[in-house]
Amino acid sequence: MGSDICRLGICGLGTVGSGVLNLLATQTEEIRRKTGTTISLVQIGCRRPHPDCDLSSTAVSKDIFDLARNPDIDILVELIGGTDIAKALVLEAISNGKHVVTANKALIALHGDELFRAAAAAGVQVRYEAAVAGGIPIIKAIREGLVANRIEWLLGIINGTSNFILTEMAREGNHQTFEQVLAGAQRSGYAEADPSLDVEGIDAAHKLTILASLAFGLPLKFDMVVTEGISTLTLDDIRFADELGYRIRHLGIARRKEHPDQTEIELRVHPALIPQAHLLAQVEGVMNAVMVGADAAGGTMYYGPGAGAAPTASAVLADVIDIARGNGSPQQEFTDDTVDAYRILPIEEIESANYLRLGVHDRAGVMARVTTILSNHQVNIEALQQKDVQSSDTQIIILTNRVREGDINNAIDELEALDDLTASVVRIRLVGLPPE
Amino acid sequence: MGSDICRLGICGLGTVGSGVLNLLATQTEEIRRKTGTTISLVQIGCRRPHPDCDLSSTAVSKDIFDLARNPDIDILVELIGGTDIAKALVLEAISNGKHVVTANKALIALHGDELFRAAAAAGVQVRYEAAVAGGIPIIKAIREGLVANRIEWLLGIINGTSNFILTEMAREGNHQTFEQVLAGAQRSGYAEADPSLDVEGIDAAHKLTILASLAFGLPLKFDMVVTEGISTLTLDDIRFADELGYRIRHLGIARRKEHPDQTEIELRVHPALIPQAHLLAQVEGVMNAVMVGADAAGGTMYYGPGAGAAPTASAVLADVIDIARGNGSPQQEFTDDTVDAYRILPIEEIESANYLRLGVHDRAGVMARVTTILSNHQVNIEALQQKDVQSSDTQIIILTNRVREGDINNAIDELEALDDLTASVVRIRLVGLPPE
Repeated sequence: MGSDICRLGICGLGTVGSGVLNLLATQTEEIRRKTGTTISLVQIGCRRPHPDCDLSSTAVSKDIFDLARNPDIDILVELIGGTDIAKALVLEAISNGKHVVTANKALIALHGDELFRAAAAAGVQVRYEAAVAGGIPIIKAIREGLVANRIEWLLGIINGTSNFILTEMAREGNHQTFEQVLAGAQRSGYAEADPSLDVEGIDAAHKLTILASLAFGLPLKFDMVVTEGISTLTLDDIRFADELGYRIRHLGIARRKEHPDQTEIELRVHPALIPQAHLLAQVEGVMNAVMVGADAAGGTMYYGPGAGAAPTASAVLADVIDIARGNGSPQQEFTDDTVDAYRILPIEEIESANYLRLGVHDRAGVMARVTTILSNHQVNIEALQQKDVQSSDTQIIILTNRVREGDINNAIDELEALDDLTASVVRIRLVGLPPE
Repeated sequence: MGSDICRLGICGLGTVGSGVLNLLATQTEEIRRKTGTTISLVQIGCRRPHPDCDLSSTAVSKDIFDLARNPDIDILVELIGGTDIAKALVLEAISNGKHVVTANKALIALHGDELFRAAAAAGVQVRYEAAVAGGIPIIKAIREGLVANRIEWLLGIINGTSNFILTEMAREGNHQTFEQVLAGAQRSGYAEADPSLDVEGIDAAHKLTILASLAFGLPLKFDMVVTEGISTLTLDDIRFADELGYRIRHLGIARRKEHPDQTEIELRVHPALIPQAHLLAQVEGVMNAVMVGADAAGGTMYYGPGAGAAPTASAVLADVIDIARGNGSPQQEFTDDTVDAYRILPIEEIESANYLRLGVHDRAGVMARVTTILSNHQVNIEALQQKDVQSSDTQIIILTNRVREGDINNAIDELEALDDLTASVVRIRLVGLPPE
């Protein structure tokens, strides 16, 4: 493009769509001043009426596919969410020569490769800054700011709802369980009525998929991400972690390891104990932060609000303006020959140190039985503490050395077969910073 | 440009220049894979021989102006430092239709407006990501990532040497004074032989000038930045700040305040007490961090190594690649009509809370005399502590309310006229986060 007027069509008028409308209304003049480009909203597509939005000056269509075919639209902004209709809409827009800007992380994580191929063939861009970490320009930082680097790892707090729940559970004097904090977050709008996408780690896995694809130049591998959420964490775990000098954060981790003829990639999303003094441990509430380990730039971090109407609208419009300015980069940052050299590590081969919590009956010999099993599976104990909870029950907290996931899982299976245990073993991985 | 080969000339082979050479050598293939662009180094200009660099495959000229005239060069990378020759070199390159990439913060802060005008007239770009905060893509974040925002304030740790000295002075059990830490930093290469640019705040003022110009769309106003360094800070101040719940950081602060017919801008660089729990207080050693307060995206932060050969080279090459990809944005982000509406606040009108340390003789009535003077100048006391240092001397630590700089300065002048004082009054501003 590079023209002085950029004609926009927006599909979807939910939270983000309304945010984009509001930001456009206040910022059109400032954007023109900064960029020499006027953003002109040509058409809105929304299936339901929106009496709260002033749509009097813009054409509105109930059929969003009208926008994908409207020859007066240069850029289609997809904010309807979901994956099936959104995918069809985006493909239709691309086939009609339109650029696409989307905030839809599931769409990109699941169907991005197909969309990028179609866009490359049509000579248009599909951009998705708003899909990861809200208003933080993390896609731009990785794709352009760090373009001269080999990126070694990514580590991020990329789900605001989970982080809000974890920091609320840990807040001094609060003593609210996961379920209690979640219920409060749902009442105040920080969590969805169906919270599973957030608290089970799926939303974070979508985002990690996108970040890792960009950082390492590999296809989108959502189905290969090891995904665990925070719904099983207890106040005991948060307290014991604190006493050991850690905080619990829900992290997305991607790491590359070079071998002579192969590149191994780790992709995982799970709660983790991280040292209290680390920057990521200071990230509280609904904030997001992504650290990027790069060979030349070193470790850089990007922090800010990870969601919300205005931050997400900021990212959507940044993409729109980049397209209007004629800025872009190749859609697909990998080629088939390099992709073959990548191997995504199966979970059994991932190594980490671990926090274990065992509820046991306070009986003679229990400690010996536990430590023998760990030792038999090459799990060394770095620290061990016994916590009395009730008269006849005891909690044993163990920090292990760095072990293969397969070994620790076998050890846990064997521990859980003991009749000493009062409950399943709780296991939370430790993540070193950087995660090497 | 947008072509598949980008022809580079590099002037200056110091730390950064060597870093760019090294990064080019290892990353040319990865950059081609990511971007479809091959970076080809055509000529190097350096006045001194560099036996440690392998220059056998590249043309070398002792006259750097050869490169500014070489028709085979698309982009001239200016890494010679200084301002006079660098300015002439850049202007010559621009007049010959070359894009320019520079890491030279002084050049941009002092002569940027002139260079940008020349570049705009010639239809080329002058880019300077490497001039601020090393490998952190902060220029890109402000100019492109947050382009749809009105930026309200910036707050940054933008001089790694000062931050290294402050965190070393505060390190538990270290007890080294400013002078001792500085001497150590000079021995280990973290500080220059002449450290004044860093420790007197001038380097930070250069960077703040550049950031504020971009963020607020105003011309470069280096001579309007209130600039104070860290050379007068003592271990006492760091300890007392700690006891009060603060850490001392050297900050660059830019803030805008809208009035009906005028925009007021604060530009200042000085040490400040900031709350211990804040993210910026966790930024240690030579690391940099910049927080940006924007109306839509909210408060975002960018963190990483602020200097060094490899991080700076990463930023230089990011600029080179953007130009090669054909990406850019208008050179000058302000227009004359908007500039007239800006007023840079003189120091007397800036408001802040303050930490005061007064060394006094332990005499009857001294506290009354001190508090009366403060009260007479509308300075209210939020907290006051008396610290016994030696038998007959006392230190009084005072935290004031938010007051105008003019008032607190008058109060300090009057305090220093008392014969109760054993030394000049130490004053360090408190900075709230966000700085509003």
